[in-house]
Amino acid sequence: MARIAVVAGDGIGPEVVAEARKVIDAVLPGVEATEYDLGAARYHRTGEVLPDSVLGELAGHDAILLGAVGDPTVPPGVLERGLLLKLRFAFDQYVNLRPSRLWPGVASPLAAVKPGEVDLVVVREGTEGLYAGAGGTLHRGTPAEVATEESLNTRHGVERVVRDAFARASRRERRKVTLVHKTNVLTHAGSLWARTFEAVAAEHPDVTTEYQHVDAAAMFLVTQPQRYDVVVTDNLFGDILTDIAAAVTGGIGLAASGSINPDGTYPSMFEPVHGSAPDIAGRGVADPVAAVLSAALLLDQLGHADAAARITVAVSAELAGRGPDVALRTAEVGDRIAAQVAA
Amino acid sequence: MARIAVVAGDGIGPEVVAEARKVIDAVLPGVEATEYDLGAARYHRTGEVLPDSVLGELAGHDAILLGAVGDPTVPPGVLERGLLLKLRFAFDQYVNLRPSRLWPGVASPLAAVKPGEVDLVVVREGTEGLYAGAGGTLHRGTPAEVATEESLNTRHGVERVVRDAFARASRRERRKVTLVHKTNVLTHAGSLWARTFEAVAAEHPDVTTEYQHVDAAAMFLVTQPQRYDVVVTDNLFGDILTDIAAAVTGGIGLAASGSINPDGTYPSMFEPVHGSAPDIAGRGVADPVAAVLSAALLLDQLGHADAAARITVAVSAELAGRGPDVALRTAEVGDRIAAQVAA
Ligand SMILES: CC(C)[C@H](C(=O)O)[C@@H](O)C(=O)O
Ligand SMILES: CC(C)[C@H](C(=O)O)[C@@H](O)C(=O)O
Repeated sequence: MARIAVVAGDGIGPEVVAEARKVIDAVLPGVEATEYDLGAARYHRTGEVLPDSVLGELAGHDAILLGAVGDPTVPPGVLERGLLLKLRFAFDQYVNLRPSRLWPGVASPLAAVKPGEVDLVVVREGTEGLYAGAGGTLHRGTPAEVATEESLNTRHGVERVVRDAFARASRRERRKVTLVHKTNVLTHAGSLWARTFEAVAAEHPDVTTEYQHVDAAAMFLVTQPQRYDVVVTDNLFGDILTDIAAAVTGGIGLAASGSINPDGTYPSMFEPVHGSAPDIAGRGVADPVAAVLSAALLLDQLGHADAAARITVAVSAELAGRGPDVALRTAEVGDRIAAQVAA
Repeated sequence: MARIAVVAGDGIGPEVVAEARKVIDAVLPGVEATEYDLGAARYHRTGEVLPDSVLGELAGHDAILLGAVGDPTVPPGVLERGLLLKLRFAFDQYVNLRPSRLWPGVASPLAAVKPGEVDLVVVREGTEGLYAGAGGTLHRGTPAEVATEESLNTRHGVERVVRDAFARASRRERRKVTLVHKTNVLTHAGSLWARTFEAVAAEHPDVTTEYQHVDAAAMFLVTQPQRYDVVVTDNLFGDILTDIAAAVTGGIGLAASGSINPDGTYPSMFEPVHGSAPDIAGRGVADPVAAVLSAALLLDQLGHADAAARITVAVSAELAGRGPDVALRTAEVGDRIAAQVAA
């Protein structure tokens, strides 16, 4: 049976992770979970972000379930670079998977979009680009200061994530992949992405393809999100586009994500897109749906497609049953979904 | 009297520019205009994108009015890098100004947003960042290929555009500036932007400030565009955010922009955000409003604030008078606006 590591984290993280675990236990009894204390609280207590020993222990698990880490009291970058990005890079999680669906019962902020019409997945590259950490500062704090950030892109890194996107598209109904980049300005990286995309596309005659500049894609996600099926893009563009996709499908409160190492060499990590939301932490009112959907992605990745599908169906029923101004209780949502997946 | 250069360009460019000129002539008779033939058509005819002699002549004008350049037959990057970006960099147009208003009579795709509620302006840096053209490719076309893009940011370049944003905010009613960056990942450039922003903010105690990561800003532009007044951001983030802002306020068909050299050393350039739209070119059905509003920005920049305000009022009336499914004729729209500004 699967062994997972659980990083509940800060703020609402522990609250929503508790419900995700409840649902996992109900749908697939016997998954073994080990808790790891990481995040802002540990950082403040010990000064540690991610000790090597913990990284080593995490590596021994089949997958990681993460709630949320972060707090306004931690300087920007410390937990992001030291924990989240560290894990994505150390565990070679090159497929950052972010599905967006407009669920029945959920209102889109877009007047013209109806539930069921949006069902897209962004395959965001997770280990390269501007996230590589290549950059520097000269003459800091003087009028002559220069700061650089470098986007690093390799054929190796681009090809593997593009292949993953096409493989996913082949298994979906519409079988369409949109490449998003900015080839007219970022001509070097853009050309690498475009040529790689074309080469992989040639091996998938059954998949329809299109290309869009990132500014156009940002616009079309607002005016016509229905048009997308699978979107493949680089690390930073993916960061921005997935928040837009989440916004038009009811908000990051419902958005799940997976940082996946498809090769299985290292564990993949699954987490809600929302943050630790310190303003509502401890009150039992956070929506655990994004964490529960992240658990479904986790089980799917571990080969339990049926269990994952049962969670998705239960979440769909939960959301369809909510009124517009529901006063939700975190634990009750988890109870309802757990009861349904067990039934 | 002002002397302007006009680059009508390709596709619907000449059609919408004709109306913008009609309106300029009506509101401020005597502006001298010289036409320059640049764009896809010239490129195909002569192989030239922007000869040095033309660049020199353009430099001698007070401002440039551009329609749209580009055509699917021109390889990506040729006109962008060779003409549009060349002009922004050669003429040190460091303030890329993109106002977004939801005009009365225009429907937002956002269900909860009402006309009059959105009135923001993005001050996008125009001469640095990932647009600097710093990057390269090694081992092209092989499995070992590496492609890089470098974002270059200087205190000089960041400070001048941040100052411009605060100066604009001081003149507006809400007096608020939002800095958008990605300081938690792009720590070098992010720190430079954040420190510079704080330093300039300290000189403007009357202006409210906030900071948002680019992914959060992309989301809030969709869920709550009303919250923004002036947004200042880097070149690439500005490219993406302004298309979202345009989308939520009725589309790029209404969006105007200015690439401004505030020092007046070089001419500033004004253009609609939309492209050359070859699919509808030559039919007289393109909406000239974005070009007309770009002309208003041009006149404002040249010190004719009254003339600019009259155009804005006339555009507002034009849009308020349109039914939802109006079959518009380019020339008639220009005639109506010209008649109103002259009255
Ligand atoms: C927290 C941050 C480093 C992260 C990112 O930029 O990838 C977040 O925005 C996300 O999308 O997972
Ligand atoms: C055409 C392209 C180079 C340009 C840009 O990226 O700046 C356009 O998208 C814009 O926003 O003006």
